Amino acid sequence: MRFLSRNLIGHLRNHAAKSVAATGSVRYQQTATKLASGRPLIANEPAGPAIVTKTIPGPESNRKLQELSQIAETGSVQLFVDYERSLGNYLVDVDGNTLLDVYTQISSLPLGYSHPDLLRLLDDPNHVKAFINRPALGAFPGTDWTDRLQNSLMAVAPPGLRNLCTMSCGSCSNENAFKAIYIWYRTKERGGDTSFTAEELETCMHNQTPGSPPYTILSFSGAFHGRTMGCLSATRSKAIHKIDIPALDWPMANFPQYKYPLEEYVHENQQEDAKCLEETEDLIHKYNAAGKPVAAIVVEPIQAEGGDNHASPEFFQGLQQISKRTGAAFLIDEVQTGGGPTGKMWCHEHFNLPEAPDIVTFSKKMLTGGYYFKEEFKPPQGYRIYNTWMGDPSKVIMLEEVVRVIQRDRLLENVNESGDVLMKGLTTLQNQYPQHINSTRGRGTFIAFDGTNGAKRDTIVNKLKLQGIHSGGCGDKSVRLRPALIFQPHHANIFLNKLETVLSNL
Amino acid sequence: MRFLSRNLIGHLRNHAAKSVAATGSVRYQQTATKLASGRPLIANEPAGPAIVTKTIPGPESNRKLQELSQIAETGSVQLFVDYERSLGNYLVDVDGNTLLDVYTQISSLPLGYSHPDLLRLLDDPNHVKAFINRPALGAFPGTDWTDRLQNSLMAVAPPGLRNLCTMSCGSCSNENAFKAIYIWYRTKERGGDTSFTAEELETCMHNQTPGSPPYTILSFSGAFHGRTMGCLSATRSKAIHKIDIPALDWPMANFPQYKYPLEEYVHENQQEDAKCLEETEDLIHKYNAAGKPVAAIVVEPIQAEGGDNHASPEFFQGLQQISKRTGAAFLIDEVQTGGGPTGKMWCHEHFNLPEAPDIVTFSKKMLTGGYYFKEEFKPPQGYRIYNTWMGDPSKVIMLEEVVRVIQRDRLLENVNESGDVLMKGLTTLQNQYPQHINSTRGRGTFIAFDGTNGAKRDTIVNKLKLQGIHSGGCGDKSVRLRPALIFQPHHANIFLNKLETVLSNL
Repeated sequence: MRFLSRNLIGHLRNHAAKSVAATGSVRYQQTATKLASGRPLIANEPAGPAIVTKTIPGPESNRKLQELSQIAETGSVQLFVDYERSLGNYLVDVDGNTLLDVYTQISSLPLGYSHPDLLRLLDDPNHVKAFINRPALGAFPGTDWTDRLQNSLMAVAPPGLRNLCTMSCGSCSNENAFKAIYIWYRTKERGGDTSFTAEELETCMHNQTPGSPPYTILSFSGAFHGRTMGCLSATRSKAIHKIDIPALDWPMANFPQYKYPLEEYVHENQQEDAKCLEETEDLIHKYNAAGKPVAAIVVEPIQAEGGDNHASPEFFQGLQQISKRTGAAFLIDEVQTGGGPTGKMWCHEHFNLPEAPDIVTFSKKMLTGGYYFKEEFKPPQGYRIYNTWMGDPSKVIMLEEVVRVIQRDRLLENVNESGDVLMKGLTTLQNQYPQHINSTRGRGTFIAFDGTNGAKRDTIVNKLKLQGIHSGGCGDKSVRLRPALIFQPHHANIFLNKLETVLSNL
Repeated sequence: MRFLSRNLIGHLRNHAAKSVAATGSVRYQQTATKLASGRPLIANEPAGPAIVTKTIPGPESNRKLQELSQIAETGSVQLFVDYERSLGNYLVDVDGNTLLDVYTQISSLPLGYSHPDLLRLLDDPNHVKAFINRPALGAFPGTDWTDRLQNSLMAVAPPGLRNLCTMSCGSCSNENAFKAIYIWYRTKERGGDTSFTAEELETCMHNQTPGSPPYTILSFSGAFHGRTMGCLSATRSKAIHKIDIPALDWPMANFPQYKYPLEEYVHENQQEDAKCLEETEDLIHKYNAAGKPVAAIVVEPIQAEGGDNHASPEFFQGLQQISKRTGAAFLIDEVQTGGGPTGKMWCHEHFNLPEAPDIVTFSKKMLTGGYYFKEEFKPPQGYRIYNTWMGDPSKVIMLEEVVRVIQRDRLLENVNESGDVLMKGLTTLQNQYPQHINSTRGRGTFIAFDGTNGAKRDTIVNKLKLQGIHSGGCGDKSVRLRPALIFQPHHANIFLNKLETVLSNL
């Protein structure tokens, strides 16, 4: 096994702005550039940001915050948005500020705001009925449900995965993927027998073994897999997400922490991969021996909430090999990375895995939650992976249109093109302002850079907002870019110019 | 404390058909009766069921099932539905069968299919935008979000609860209500201090105490609270829901099992209440003493999935008193009972509780998931109860219209009127066919009766389908009726006539 991150190096090399001067002010071209589509993707989008209040949030946002805080907990509310006026890559807030949105509702808008093709969907009265008549999909699917799935989720399924299950959100997707894994693991332990003993049937009603087996899920330091009880036990992002909530004794291995630039630290980073893989396998053996069998390894292809932490393709290949050796399932959580922002539909397609992961979960840009799985993870009985709604056809109808637009407008090409512009520009800026930012990294437009510390990061995000750029933080000191798939090179240039304005005035 | 179930007796008395002959065939009036609204609530509804295939599911449903089973687990799929043709109380399947639907997508359609007022919502282009532009509500709510909440969820909030949190589904609602309770409980233990120790911040990242405290939730035998890990540990419905899935050592008390008719067993049922309440309090003390503090008692006002098990108002009053004495929160799970089917918006309003429960969870007929809570359950910091979507404005916009229609059409009165017809008719039928059915019970139209055994129940449900009635099972041998709020007395009479046809031919 080779741990050298050739792919990752290659990828970053492609993005590196070798020819751009590392000093001196750079002005980026803001007019619409010639693209895959040959023209701006969204008609009538604003030409650029426009800020009309002295502070953001402005007075109207603050007034509405007061109002909402009377009936809800609002500690995380940043801004009130006028969704009727928001369009394409531009968010308009209730104070009339127009911001270029590179955060897009925590990376959950594939086509930005009010995409004309999505709006047109509801001109069809049958679509309107589908939006109104929400079925219990696990029991009573609609006439065209299979076709809808084929045209949306199956049309972009990860190579090698031909089964799926829809859910309503990311946490439910991971929770139910865990359950499918437990059922698969237990069926393996039974030698493929799909019946139950009387003792199992009795004890599970009391939450006791053998009916409720003490299986565990291995996750990584810095991981984020959601916030319901099972998910949160695998989440290792920040204390505020976890504190005071009961959690299970599940193994946590270290996620690789590389030294940059990668080209200079090939050997060190190989060793880091080897160390983390060894620890992972040791932990699985340790938990298995302690009577807490590890049923799955769960990992994000890029740790997003945890700080946009990347690992090499070889690391992921190594994890898959460990899963084969130990009998644990290999689950890739693509809730944030899936749906195109890395320049491929699924980030794990960058990893050259010799076969598909066992399960891939999704949500956010896919509009519906759910997971793809290998046939052997199909539960042998009904009503084991089940709930009232099992997703929502209205989201799948929208996704069908999103997939059509991605293909028609060649949006993955656009992502790669815009990503190149962002990576080159950010690399130049980090060379120019090393006292403020560093560690630019990413795939496609799924890019982050770090402030020199957490306070610097917060300052940058806030000052960007006053320049008309709506971005988001992640980890301790990172700024994450999560634009929509319709974010074009000219938007990237607007962003870079505004960032330079901020950095040059810090 | 009095355990006598006067309210429940009174309720069932109101519904009992004392004056109806207990023998002989009864034909029920099928024409539209004069109602609260004075007319049929849905124009152009079919006059009655119409069955065109010899079996249900018919050939087209079976063909589509084959198709779907290629990509998904379909063990629970019953029927494919033509939602475009379904209207009001009538479901039309893909084979062209028209069925009177008294199950309504597992009780999740408040206004039946294609209600004209809901369809009209999407004539408004701003509503269309709201359906397309799904925000991250916890961070970036829309212009009218507070007004929407006030006009929908807050307009029908349980008396005494003035705070709320929206979620996407029932399981997420319970999972996050549990989290709000853990945070509240821990804050109480800290004497109200809302800061954390370094040890807590460190240990929670490793899923260890004191950062991850070993709190538990007490639930009842037969309970159903959802299927994600926390919810499933509180769920005690059926083994197939729980087997092979890890679960926590949480206390389970016995839910009362009454002898019927209630009037004849007043003393025995008082003793049953007392026994279950005593066991509940003992279990809390036992778990508290064992270092697994019980942070909440969670209970359904009527155990639905578990078999439509009722308990007396005095039992629920007793639980609330126990919660006060032991410091556990009192959480009522109204996911299935909430939204009007019991003749009140919230089933626990039937219980004359001296004060509101601490938390009430909802989903299904409310279209959005979420929970109401007392002010003291508001987390002291942001990002503790949080996820990307935090619900969905499109569901709240629909709920706003549902609430308007409930009030305009006096649908709670309609529920009570139709419920009376159902209870009288079912009481007559169970007297007439005691060899087939018994134990009719309910509030409003939230009614169930039992087959004499599980096989009999299944036969009745299947034969009802061939008569054009779409119902559902629950528990081991119960048939549950969960019609929409627009189910009128003339629909009730159609149901009763069809049921009599089935019973008289068994």
